[in-house]
Amino acid sequence: MSSKAPDQNFLFENFSKIVGKDDVSVDETELFAYSLDASNHQGEPWAIVRPENRDELVQILKFCNEQRIPVNPRGAGTSFAGQALALKGGVMLDMRKMNRIKEINIGDRTVVVEPGIVYSKLNEELAKYGYSFPPEPGSAMSCTIGGMVSNNAGGIRAIKYGVTRDFVMGLEAVLPNGDVIRTGSRSIKTSSGYDLTRLFVGSEGTLGVITEITLKILPKPKHVQVLIAVFKTAVDAGKAASQIINSGITPSAMEFVDQFTAAAMNPGLSKPLPLGEANLMIETDGTEEDIVKAEMEKAAKVCQESGALEIKVSQDPEERLQMWRARDSVTTRLMQLRGEGMVPYAIVDTGVPISRVPEALRELKDVAKKAGAPLIVMFGHIGDGNIHLALSIDPTKELEKGDKIARSIMETVINKYRGTITAEHGVGLSKAPFMPLEHGVALNYMSKIKKVFDPNGIMNPGIMGLDEIPQSTFTHMPKKIGGS
Amino acid sequence: MSSKAPDQNFLFENFSKIVGKDDVSVDETELFAYSLDASNHQGEPWAIVRPENRDELVQILKFCNEQRIPVNPRGAGTSFAGQALALKGGVMLDMRKMNRIKEINIGDRTVVVEPGIVYSKLNEELAKYGYSFPPEPGSAMSCTIGGMVSNNAGGIRAIKYGVTRDFVMGLEAVLPNGDVIRTGSRSIKTSSGYDLTRLFVGSEGTLGVITEITLKILPKPKHVQVLIAVFKTAVDAGKAASQIINSGITPSAMEFVDQFTAAAMNPGLSKPLPLGEANLMIETDGTEEDIVKAEMEKAAKVCQESGALEIKVSQDPEERLQMWRARDSVTTRLMQLRGEGMVPYAIVDTGVPISRVPEALRELKDVAKKAGAPLIVMFGHIGDGNIHLALSIDPTKELEKGDKIARSIMETVINKYRGTITAEHGVGLSKAPFMPLEHGVALNYMSKIKKVFDPNGIMNPGIMGLDEIPQSTFTHMPKKIGGS
Repeated sequence: MSSKAPDQNFLFENFSKIVGKDDVSVDETELFAYSLDASNHQGEPWAIVRPENRDELVQILKFCNEQRIPVNPRGAGTSFAGQALALKGGVMLDMRKMNRIKEINIGDRTVVVEPGIVYSKLNEELAKYGYSFPPEPGSAMSCTIGGMVSNNAGGIRAIKYGVTRDFVMGLEAVLPNGDVIRTGSRSIKTSSGYDLTRLFVGSEGTLGVITEITLKILPKPKHVQVLIAVFKTAVDAGKAASQIINSGITPSAMEFVDQFTAAAMNPGLSKPLPLGEANLMIETDGTEEDIVKAEMEKAAKVCQESGALEIKVSQDPEERLQMWRARDSVTTRLMQLRGEGMVPYAIVDTGVPISRVPEALRELKDVAKKAGAPLIVMFGHIGDGNIHLALSIDPTKELEKGDKIARSIMETVINKYRGTITAEHGVGLSKAPFMPLEHGVALNYMSKIKKVFDPNGIMNPGIMGLDEIPQSTFTHMPKKIGGS
Repeated sequence: MSSKAPDQNFLFENFSKIVGKDDVSVDETELFAYSLDASNHQGEPWAIVRPENRDELVQILKFCNEQRIPVNPRGAGTSFAGQALALKGGVMLDMRKMNRIKEINIGDRTVVVEPGIVYSKLNEELAKYGYSFPPEPGSAMSCTIGGMVSNNAGGIRAIKYGVTRDFVMGLEAVLPNGDVIRTGSRSIKTSSGYDLTRLFVGSEGTLGVITEITLKILPKPKHVQVLIAVFKTAVDAGKAASQIINSGITPSAMEFVDQFTAAAMNPGLSKPLPLGEANLMIETDGTEEDIVKAEMEKAAKVCQESGALEIKVSQDPEERLQMWRARDSVTTRLMQLRGEGMVPYAIVDTGVPISRVPEALRELKDVAKKAGAPLIVMFGHIGDGNIHLALSIDPTKELEKGDKIARSIMETVINKYRGTITAEHGVGLSKAPFMPLEHGVALNYMSKIKKVFDPNGIMNPGIMGLDEIPQSTFTHMPKKIGGS
């Protein structure tokens, strides 16, 4: 793989021949814009290319493979871990022009899309038929389906409906040598050969470029209720959450929000939420109103018995929408607070077994504190064990401390809880240092699988610990806010 | 890979050193017994070894890898496609001594087992806690969890609860070089690295030997109802099935059974089922009795409106059990009919998109007839598009015709319906000729992935079209019933 940029005219001319001049850019300002995503990392591409179809992609990949030019596929750039950046330079493939819905098949409950379609746009179209693609990440309004598939995105509905992986029936992808493979089947069940579909799900653009996605879709639930319960401590809220799961009901969402997260949410709302020290936001949904209501009453009762200080149930769709939009924007808001004294440089995205959530909520905060974190913000999809922590550190002088904090948390999650270093954000660069910790010798086999598809290592290099293990989670930091 | 057997004493002595003399056999009668599974193929091992733990397996695999001896892992040998046979000789690994339940964790809704535990035994233990592992293949009473994972087994509950793949959270496996890898996480959500768990699910023992499985489990439904509806034609039954799915209810089972299948089922029952030309067996389940009953009433109404000649609803657990046991035994019974004039040599296991089931039921039968099949038996998990056909041919003189029939069916399923050559039985040897048809160039990448884990090709060679594509689906036939 080339780490030195070829002449820009050479790139511009060759890519222009494939996609036309209007869909290639080597403009400095634009290259800078694409050098950032929603993470704390930076990596500038040598050129930006916007393919419109599979045939163009075949030509682009063959050219880049011959020339050993890194290829970095990108959807909306909402990734928190640096997987949408050109960390080793190369071409940035902006996939957003490939955004067609190719087929909506209600009889089969499937939809076939190109990767560049935005999640909310797809669901808008599906809603016309009374259907939806349930996984709903925080970036629902802007993220692309291709990005969701490449990161196995989760979100607030995973507790009941599962994650992106559970909905992908098949894929079409272009490989570096120009081969076009089709994976999966239109049959809902298949036991035919290795599961290449799920190998590509979560592969973060390191194997090839996805050009078509077949997804399962589900009827939209007819009835929805939400509840906010305020608790004295995170452990109380965690216990209530575990208790709700054990009681046999499956909420369609169950979010934990601490006082700092609440503070980041409320300023955007016309009617502030009644949030306190530790809060649960719970949603139930379904086709039968009685059941949705009964489930919500049961959830409320469990919260009451677990010592909730205040409980508010709402059936108002407008209020509900506002509440989830505020929750969706939490990470973005926290990142924006960088300049205001609170510097949440690491958004940690750990997952632990459900039964150990209350214990982990306390311990992870303690571990972070002990390692020197001055302020820790906690929130997460508590119903599926996904705990987010935002750590405030000053990266211009505290990189070592930051790494120590992150490593302490990850070691606890893996060694004590047998959890995961990333439940839904993906590995990217931020979590790459911890891949050996979670996967041990299995990581070698992941690297070898990458070589099967991408022998020259041109596909999104520098992430997931497949080609190198970064020592620090704070590498490739944006220059203007410090770091290497 | 060696295709010539080493001296038997050499094998016996070396394996005895690892597992002890009692767990090695080179006895001729036993080798013959292990040369068969539930398929129409035969492959005799050179030795049988019964490992008791992971450490023994590490030594066995290292020895076989050095000596280039094929390694064939086997559970209960209930496979229909020849994947539990020693097609290239080598050692047969009988995994049934590794059958411990290592952990039942109700709080996390997970169970950790060794691969040799039998499905029904596991569910018996889980039932003590009010839980179950829902996928229920026809071989539920004897098949092992390791076999289910290796074939991504489906079964009658897949329509509502999903297939084995949907329940596997993590695995431990020993690779040919002795490496022990751990895949997945105890966190219910993870986006960390390539999904090696689901790569191993359905890999039919061609990558390594699974030594530990972590499964999701679910609370057992409290209420169950069943219904049998008799229709005039298969297309009527298929339409009713599609209609039921579209009506918004999700039965926990929906089976199609034709008149021949019914004839194979009824002799085993004390109280014969009211089965006719074309029948649907439908089950609803859940935690709330009212809903289970309401769903069943809705299903019955749809059957009525779709022209059912007779409908019988039952709430009697004994009747229900007998009915499903009879359904479970259908394939075995059909195979036993070999000697009685009806010779169902090929159990076809295709899957098509749900909306096209009625059309496919008619067309697949027509295609088979046109290709020369004298008698076609049809049954299947119609709610998820899984159609089984049993073809009666005389393999001593009709191999070419048999291949022609099988290929006509597979080409229709893939080219017209974009379905799958195997929805739940696995590829093995029987479906290996059709792997290029379904997967095209993607099959090359499956072969290359196999080489990553098994560079010497010792793991269960000769199946899945990974090392060679057999021309005929009737290769390696048992000598006593003809074939090559």
